[in-house]
Amino acid sequence: MSQSSFGKKFVVTTWGESHGKALGAVVDGCPAGLSLEEKDIQAFLDRRRPGQSRYTTPRKEGDEVEILSGVFEGKTTGTPISLMIRNTDQRSRDYGNIAYSYRPGHADYTYDQKYGLRDYRGGGRSSGRETTGRVAAGAIAAKLLKELGITFCTYTRSIGPVSASVFCKKEIPNNAFYMPDANAAAKAGEYLEQCMKNHDSAGGVIECRIQGTPAGLGDPVFGKLDAELAKAIMSIGAVKAVEIGDGIQVASLNGSTDNDGFCVKDGNVCKTSNHAGGIMGGMSDGSEIILRAHIKPTPSISQPQHTITKGGEEFDMIIHGRHDPVIVPRAVVVVESMAALTITDALFSNMSARLDRILDFYSR
Amino acid sequence: MSQSSFGKKFVVTTWGESHGKALGAVVDGCPAGLSLEEKDIQAFLDRRRPGQSRYTTPRKEGDEVEILSGVFEGKTTGTPISLMIRNTDQRSRDYGNIAYSYRPGHADYTYDQKYGLRDYRGGGRSSGRETTGRVAAGAIAAKLLKELGITFCTYTRSIGPVSASVFCKKEIPNNAFYMPDANAAAKAGEYLEQCMKNHDSAGGVIECRIQGTPAGLGDPVFGKLDAELAKAIMSIGAVKAVEIGDGIQVASLNGSTDNDGFCVKDGNVCKTSNHAGGIMGGMSDGSEIILRAHIKPTPSISQPQHTITKGGEEFDMIIHGRHDPVIVPRAVVVVESMAALTITDALFSNMSARLDRILDFYSR
Amino acid sequence: MSQSSFGKKFVVTTWGESHGKALGAVVDGCPAGLSLEEKDIQAFLDRRRPGQSRYTTPRKEGDEVEILSGVFEGKTTGTPISLMIRNTDQRSRDYGNIAYSYRPGHADYTYDQKYGLRDYRGGGRSSGRETTGRVAAGAIAAKLLKELGITFCTYTRSIGPVSASVFCKKEIPNNAFYMPDANAAAKAGEYLEQCMKNHDSAGGVIECRIQGTPAGLGDPVFGKLDAELAKAIMSIGAVKAVEIGDGIQVASLNGSTDNDGFCVKDGNVCKTSNHAGGIMGGMSDGSEIILRAHIKPTPSISQPQHTITKGGEEFDMIIHGRHDPVIVPRAVVVVESMAALTITDALFSNMSARLDRILDFYSR
Amino acid sequence: MSQSSFGKKFVVTTWGESHGKALGAVVDGCPAGLSLEEKDIQAFLDRRRPGQSRYTTPRKEGDEVEILSGVFEGKTTGTPISLMIRNTDQRSRDYGNIAYSYRPGHADYTYDQKYGLRDYRGGGRSSGRETTGRVAAGAIAAKLLKELGITFCTYTRSIGPVSASVFCKKEIPNNAFYMPDANAAAKAGEYLEQCMKNHDSAGGVIECRIQGTPAGLGDPVFGKLDAELAKAIMSIGAVKAVEIGDGIQVASLNGSTDNDGFCVKDGNVCKTSNHAGGIMGGMSDGSEIILRAHIKPTPSISQPQHTITKGGEEFDMIIHGRHDPVIVPRAVVVVESMAALTITDALFSNMSARLDRILDFYSR
Repeated sequence: MSQSSFGKKFVVTTWGESHGKALGAVVDGCPAGLSLEEKDIQAFLDRRRPGQSRYTTPRKEGDEVEILSGVFEGKTTGTPISLMIRNTDQRSRDYGNIAYSYRPGHADYTYDQKYGLRDYRGGGRSSGRETTGRVAAGAIAAKLLKELGITFCTYTRSIGPVSASVFCKKEIPNNAFYMPDANAAAKAGEYLEQCMKNHDSAGGVIECRIQGTPAGLGDPVFGKLDAELAKAIMSIGAVKAVEIGDGIQVASLNGSTDNDGFCVKDGNVCKTSNHAGGIMGGMSDGSEIILRAHIKPTPSISQPQHTITKGGEEFDMIIHGRHDPVIVPRAVVVVESMAALTITDALFSNMSARLDRILDFYSR
Repeated sequence: MSQSSFGKKFVVTTWGESHGKALGAVVDGCPAGLSLEEKDIQAFLDRRRPGQSRYTTPRKEGDEVEILSGVFEGKTTGTPISLMIRNTDQRSRDYGNIAYSYRPGHADYTYDQKYGLRDYRGGGRSSGRETTGRVAAGAIAAKLLKELGITFCTYTRSIGPVSASVFCKKEIPNNAFYMPDANAAAKAGEYLEQCMKNHDSAGGVIECRIQGTPAGLGDPVFGKLDAELAKAIMSIGAVKAVEIGDGIQVASLNGSTDNDGFCVKDGNVCKTSNHAGGIMGGMSDGSEIILRAHIKPTPSISQPQHTITKGGEEFDMIIHGRHDPVIVPRAVVVVESMAALTITDALFSNMSARLDRILDFYSR
Repeated sequence: MSQSSFGKKFVVTTWGESHGKALGAVVDGCPAGLSLEEKDIQAFLDRRRPGQSRYTTPRKEGDEVEILSGVFEGKTTGTPISLMIRNTDQRSRDYGNIAYSYRPGHADYTYDQKYGLRDYRGGGRSSGRETTGRVAAGAIAAKLLKELGITFCTYTRSIGPVSASVFCKKEIPNNAFYMPDANAAAKAGEYLEQCMKNHDSAGGVIECRIQGTPAGLGDPVFGKLDAELAKAIMSIGAVKAVEIGDGIQVASLNGSTDNDGFCVKDGNVCKTSNHAGGIMGGMSDGSEIILRAHIKPTPSISQPQHTITKGGEEFDMIIHGRHDPVIVPRAVVVVESMAALTITDALFSNMSARLDRILDFYSR
Repeated sequence: MSQSSFGKKFVVTTWGESHGKALGAVVDGCPAGLSLEEKDIQAFLDRRRPGQSRYTTPRKEGDEVEILSGVFEGKTTGTPISLMIRNTDQRSRDYGNIAYSYRPGHADYTYDQKYGLRDYRGGGRSSGRETTGRVAAGAIAAKLLKELGITFCTYTRSIGPVSASVFCKKEIPNNAFYMPDANAAAKAGEYLEQCMKNHDSAGGVIECRIQGTPAGLGDPVFGKLDAELAKAIMSIGAVKAVEIGDGIQVASLNGSTDNDGFCVKDGNVCKTSNHAGGIMGGMSDGSEIILRAHIKPTPSISQPQHTITKGGEEFDMIIHGRHDPVIVPRAVVVVESMAALTITDALFSNMSARLDRILDFYSR
């Protein structure tokens, strides 16, 4: 299993460095017959593109995707879909500091420890640009899921100390933070202005809700659906905690308040509550799947920070350059993409769980 | 990849149902030459054995492990180690309610949805007894890691609303909850008494600290060490949230407070803080790895709960039987086991990261 | 992926040494709802049991299988099926020679080189007894495939220089060699008598024909169905060559004779010949799949052979004990088992190849 | 595991269709620190490039490789190496016949059966051009192995009925067929002239010898080194049989002639013969590894062949276009590449087999 691959049946392999020639992804295991064009993918990439507001880096990353294989006459063929995004904004500049010393909060030190060398230009493979491939692949997964009636609603729940206190779905695309609460978004903006003035940065929380998943997805032991989602989400650069359903709150609840009862509504099995966030014993229960990602503040800040050179000399480093004061808004689509990849994979893996359904499948 | 397997190089495959003939695990990829006896494994199993205090189920589960293969003359041979634990306390009784209806907070419904049928005796494969195999395998991983100087300190941080406020390592094994704070443990006991009186249950938080890991473990994209740990921990039955380092707190911190600076101490690279919990960019940085698991209250409670039969008839179910009012203390060793499996796997996977080290390895 | 596992969706993990406590297999990914009892598996194991004729070792290996998990009320539950076969004929004896020196044609030397130590009793994990777990798992796969109308015909094509020259299916179970030709079987018997008189051993060729596979199984690049079959068959201890369809003959054919034309018969697509052995471009074409395994002579022979001790001292070794003069007859069911495992895995993996079928599957 | 991926630790994922925009491969798990430039890869690609003699297709396939990621300042960085080869000779033409009917000996029918549609231009993904990605990746593996002292000698053993009868290593690159026998090469040329005159094609046999592998590579059960090699080689389009060492001959040998004895030479353990082809019990024994691939005649021939349309109408098809009368010479480097990938993967997987070596590795 490639270290840079995700999934068992619907497999994405990403490649590329921030300032290399290009970045991309190979999506293998996409079923034949899905209508797919570059603009389907571009729409997702545009959601993570920088320069959309004064709270994201003004770097211009064209992020134009090219489909190199796996699509014929507008349909996927079942063979690997190769996606490439050429890097365009590769300013030649002096990386001296970054090349020979370790930025706090970054992966410079651990890359050097693991590999003995690193592509230091723009963070290389540890750059947030690595998520480009994930988002491109996620767009395909999301399109495929939509055909099955599975949809996503992903948004920012908080920026620093400012949390959304109302949920208005329509509001989400209307503010720079993808928050479902216009008031909170305004306050988040004020908070970020203050951070920027202080040469500092902020984190936040992203929530993802998934509707329409059939019951029974996920494998009940190590491959629990929540375990796979946790891995998927925690594999996004700056995520430091993942919650499912009531998440950390469950630790202080009682069984009588945490348990979701069952009932029947219009002939369908329903739950009387959804503390579990749509997953029971590692398998989807047919209700809404809810997860949250806790994202750390952007590590690149323009105030002096204590660190060392590769040679072990201590000094106060100042990082120059164009950095997002908060990465949360741009990470919203990354969280959604990773969730979409996970659900797609679980859907395909689940197809051989029952003999009667296998017999039915092959007798058609 | 088997649904019931965990790991890429050090792979454990578990099997068995709560009330079947036996449970067990096959550990493949354990290197040859490790001294191993049944008592090494038994010591770990005893930490999760029920009946240790009035706050765990009084069920007797002998949990005696038998090594069936892979060990010769007291040493592992590099071939699969098969471990079996016979089920002994299989009381024959009426499972009527559980067989034909869905317990709230349990996996009965999702198992039926996925598989069309289930072994309902004692929860079958969704029982907490499934973790026996994980712990047996974890014991081997932990013994191996100890040879490399990697050790674990795992304990209960909170039970319901009661949190440890001091950290005394020696205290951990001295109370029924594995809390590092005797006072908090006493209060947790009082809280649980109240829960039991109310026919209710409680959850809690487990923290695991890992010392001695070399820097560079983990793969930098999808196979980040924190992502693998998140999957490992979230795959434990009742876990609903996983945190690494400062976890959920990072979302409200600023970059200037969250970033860990670097310094040099006695000639070694150190960090001036450890908000990251020992993992940067998905790779270990050589400092202590810190993670937390948030565990939901035991779903089996003896007060009436609203639910339905398989046929869709609503009713109020009362669950009889011998259940833990809290599973947190018994889950401590499960968290440690899953962490040990993850670290061992990362250690082995990491060995081919650098050409110079490969050349060195094969030139001996 | 465990080194001792086979398959992606229908995964078997085997464990155990020849003279350890037990051998076994864990079958994970078997769909729920298959009727399964121990006798289904026993029937397969009996086909590889020694002592069936004077041409197989007179060792008694009870080979009684016990199902430890994964089956409830006579049906598979979708959870791992743990199978165990206790070793019963573990005579305590002196293994001196084998423990400290290297038998020609055996894996003693390579085990020591890889692991630094080995369980030398009866060949340990490199013993033919390792195939017990494969056959137990293969029995389940074959039962499952039968429900889908997929059947196997596996037989001995040659023993040493003696080849079957007619094909009579009924004859196969009637002779000690599973040959489809009574005359050839008689001659093979005579040949083996001569080998035994000479303290020597013989090899042979096994052919496996698979009927009823739907077209489209197998993945077209690295996971070609013939590639997976080649791996499966070559992973059986003594196999040194694998052929598909016309196999080695194709190298000297012309395209005009090797190509299979297409035609229509009773409304179904057929081929005018089957040189390809049922696989085109790595995918099944719906016609009979044909493969052959070339098996080397039993390496354990009771005439002196030149070899060395672990210490590097040369000497002439004489191997005592009860050995098959030919392993081909007992390997017939092993070849069939590995083929059955491969086809089952391919069937399950194939289910997500087309969007229309996925939509159909999930809309039911 | 992606269907288009090969390997566990050194993983190559290929993508691309014959007449799409480009083809390529992503190589993940290549250790950091290997010197690598495009010309290292180009040298391998040139060995499979068409148009080198009158016996290969005159199509011009530029096959110029571009490294898009994973290399920095001339060294691999440990991150995925993305390789792309743009398709240049994409003549726009009428594919009518191929689009709506099934060429004998090709994968047209099975692709349609599996996926419901296919990219028919030039065979799409089933084209021999798919091997471009394998060869590009194989070049990297071979370069890496050379640093470890592992080298390959791969050549054509026979073309149709013409076999090499002497072995002269120097002669291999001197003839159009890569045969180690100039006489045989001349006769092979004559034979092919005759085939071409008859509008027919030929097959052949490729042999690969691998020197310098340490003992102990390969996993002893399902992941035997010969099993992995068999899979690797059989996954090449036209291969119908794979042999290791004496291969099919072993079936008619006796144990006394097939067994390789051990001896000591200049203080090193040696074998007195190498019938096993360097692999015992699935693990390398330190002697030369020998394998053979049997390759079918090119299926595209310009004489009428009976087949059907997608609609089921029978007709005699004539295939036009530029086709190799034999693909064996161009497949030599493909066999070598697949062998190199397999050996590299086995080398890396083997590193955690012994505790003493792990302790040594991590104590440096």
